Amino acid sequence: MAEIIAKEANSAFSVLKTLSDDERSGALHQIYQGLKDKKDEILKFNKIDLDNASKNNLSSSLIKRLDLSTGGKFDSMLEGILDVAKLPDPIGKCTLAKKLDEGLNLYRVTAPIGVLLIIFESRPEVIANITALAIKSGNSAILKGGKESYQTFKIMSDIVNEVLNDKTKVPKDAIKLIESREEVGDLLSQDKYIDLVIPRGSNQLVRNIKENTKIPVLGHADGICSIFVDESADIEKSVKVIVDSKTNYPAGCNAVEQLLIHEKVANDDAKLQKIYQGLKNAGVTMHATSEIKGLLPNESVVDADDKCFDTEYLSLDITVATIKSLGDAITHINSHSSKHTDCIMTESKENADKFLKGIDSAGIYWNCSTRFADGFRYGFGTEVGISTNKIHARGPVGLEGLMSYQYQLRGDGHIASQYKGAGGDKVFVHEDLDMNVKL
Amino acid sequence: MAEIIAKEANSAFSVLKTLSDDERSGALHQIYQGLKDKKDEILKFNKIDLDNASKNNLSSSLIKRLDLSTGGKFDSMLEGILDVAKLPDPIGKCTLAKKLDEGLNLYRVTAPIGVLLIIFESRPEVIANITALAIKSGNSAILKGGKESYQTFKIMSDIVNEVLNDKTKVPKDAIKLIESREEVGDLLSQDKYIDLVIPRGSNQLVRNIKENTKIPVLGHADGICSIFVDESADIEKSVKVIVDSKTNYPAGCNAVEQLLIHEKVANDDAKLQKIYQGLKNAGVTMHATSEIKGLLPNESVVDADDKCFDTEYLSLDITVATIKSLGDAITHINSHSSKHTDCIMTESKENADKFLKGIDSAGIYWNCSTRFADGFRYGFGTEVGISTNKIHARGPVGLEGLMSYQYQLRGDGHIASQYKGAGGDKVFVHEDLDMNVKL
Repeated sequence: MAEIIAKEANSAFSVLKTLSDDERSGALHQIYQGLKDKKDEILKFNKIDLDNASKNNLSSSLIKRLDLSTGGKFDSMLEGILDVAKLPDPIGKCTLAKKLDEGLNLYRVTAPIGVLLIIFESRPEVIANITALAIKSGNSAILKGGKESYQTFKIMSDIVNEVLNDKTKVPKDAIKLIESREEVGDLLSQDKYIDLVIPRGSNQLVRNIKENTKIPVLGHADGICSIFVDESADIEKSVKVIVDSKTNYPAGCNAVEQLLIHEKVANDDAKLQKIYQGLKNAGVTMHATSEIKGLLPNESVVDADDKCFDTEYLSLDITVATIKSLGDAITHINSHSSKHTDCIMTESKENADKFLKGIDSAGIYWNCSTRFADGFRYGFGTEVGISTNKIHARGPVGLEGLMSYQYQLRGDGHIASQYKGAGGDKVFVHEDLDMNVKL
Repeated sequence: MAEIIAKEANSAFSVLKTLSDDERSGALHQIYQGLKDKKDEILKFNKIDLDNASKNNLSSSLIKRLDLSTGGKFDSMLEGILDVAKLPDPIGKCTLAKKLDEGLNLYRVTAPIGVLLIIFESRPEVIANITALAIKSGNSAILKGGKESYQTFKIMSDIVNEVLNDKTKVPKDAIKLIESREEVGDLLSQDKYIDLVIPRGSNQLVRNIKENTKIPVLGHADGICSIFVDESADIEKSVKVIVDSKTNYPAGCNAVEQLLIHEKVANDDAKLQKIYQGLKNAGVTMHATSEIKGLLPNESVVDADDKCFDTEYLSLDITVATIKSLGDAITHINSHSSKHTDCIMTESKENADKFLKGIDSAGIYWNCSTRFADGFRYGFGTEVGISTNKIHARGPVGLEGLMSYQYQLRGDGHIASQYKGAGGDKVFVHEDLDMNVKL
């Protein structure tokens, strides 16, 4: 069954890949219209999800997330589809153009990746966003959403499939909803047909998926972000940034978990007290290592444990430690960070440059909150997820992260054996061509 | 042991990453000088490898490959190091620059990947090339070369480590030679410290590595390349390209293995005979499917078997089959190709465009030999390997494929909670900045 699903999505990709931007973006307009026309029906099924959630005593915040009928959520979901349609075509952009010889031209051109398996949370509107991104980028997508929204996902994907089939050139198999966790498990072995897995969800989910597939996984398990307060930091600024990074949304993967304070700052009582007061007033519990614990009052401060440097609290807790030098801070962060986002607070450009060069994370920040690590804040229009991988897309991933590239070589009967190194004596020209050429 | 090796290489990376291009390229000049000064000693150890090879009755072609003393191989190996030193600095190139708000600027900057594990064949000169590429690109490298060259590899890596240690800022652990296959096996589980595995060698080796690691693998197991002779193909041109693609170097991964002939061409006897004669005269055995077998003489033609479409012959053999349409050719190639390089022979731009858009391989060629799929021929200066992956680097991989990127965010105490979506009402500017800025 999993093989059939994956194979069908892959066949659909072969067609989708050849469609023009007008055809792909046109399909998004059709989906927009289709969902709009069936709003009542969708909300009816959404009601079933909501009723089940109440019956199962789910938390009110989860129930609020499931509800598509309030706060203009339905309409902004629809607008989101049109926003994606409006983005520039990501396919076929020439990123390298080289004349190898007279009449033999090489072009590197952006192309979709293939089949994506995307696992996402129980937020009904996300299915519309991901569907739009997949079609716009020319990728087929197999979708698995959180089970609490299943009825809403099901009716929406039925409508999407019907619209694609009846009104567009996009094959309906380009978007496939699957129901169960078991199906996800089986699909993870379909590395012949699936090119990329994008899990959004708990650390446990992401880690579990990474352990169980040969398919590349784009995402992040942990978000262990650090802030280093350098000896030349401005303290007012630092307190503001630390408190925001910790408290703006503690459950976010871009919340700070590790506060490293240069020992010169820690030993300056006025400065240390400002940091302490800022965190205490914001309701943060400090897990302090022995070096710094003695310098702090007891209130809101507990002993850091063995794992403090590798802990993602996701709550109003933070590890606090002293650091002897900028170099030590870099080494410490590179060993413990999850390579998500790390920040230095300093007024010294020289020190900032060292930090920006030395830290091996997707995001390296100077004097600003780690909470900015987000596709929308970066201006990517939309975000598929945040990647802590070091190959392919890194950090917040927008449409560009769903693209690959291909080399096109256009000749006129050119053969290798006429060239040096392959038996002949012709020499390659290797001249740069205009990349804005219309291919 | 493997963990220590990987950890040391990773620590060395933290230093290497911060060095300037002058420091990295300067180290390459020191390595050049160091190897040059010890030429006699290196050739002495190379002689031991050669003697062992003779004793073990290795093939003369392998022995020729091992020999570093003839044909100017030693000197061109040294020149290669300086060529890499001369390449533009791949680190710190700004590829995106955006003003998020007054004083809050986002830059996407190229950065090395981290620690590479590179497994390569018994060619003594390759260790110099890979060492140069790794240091130039700011990546640490753990190297395992074919055992037949071990003595040569050992003395060369000893010299490299000594030079790095005594004369450069590059930590000596940035380049580490390992000896045994067992060590490779153990290193494949060090995904905490190793970021990318690059195996060069047999399909079996690559497949085996892919099966046994969670670390991303850059490379290709198979090279099943196809040529499709479209109904509007020029036959003389086609024969020339097919024969070159098959015979120029049949053991190459970019040699053609599959010849798909549009049935209108196959049913035109004059055209079919030209293809047949061309291949027969070049000594190629045609493995023909039943539809086309009846149209061909018996000489040099055998029955294709069940696996013919998924076979990489690596010899003077080729599968020959008829195809009903361009669409069928695209579908067929996308199902059977190893996504390396596939070519259409056609005089119709429209058909070529369909093929170039529809085929899902790293290289898509129009009217030229598949043998051009090569980093040197593409003008990349150097080549680490050819990737059939669809994420990260694809096709021939040069220095660029060894790079990742990072997002730098530079602010002045900016915090997220002042902005819309995070509790405040400030709005992001998202204005493009000059990417040529000196950071």
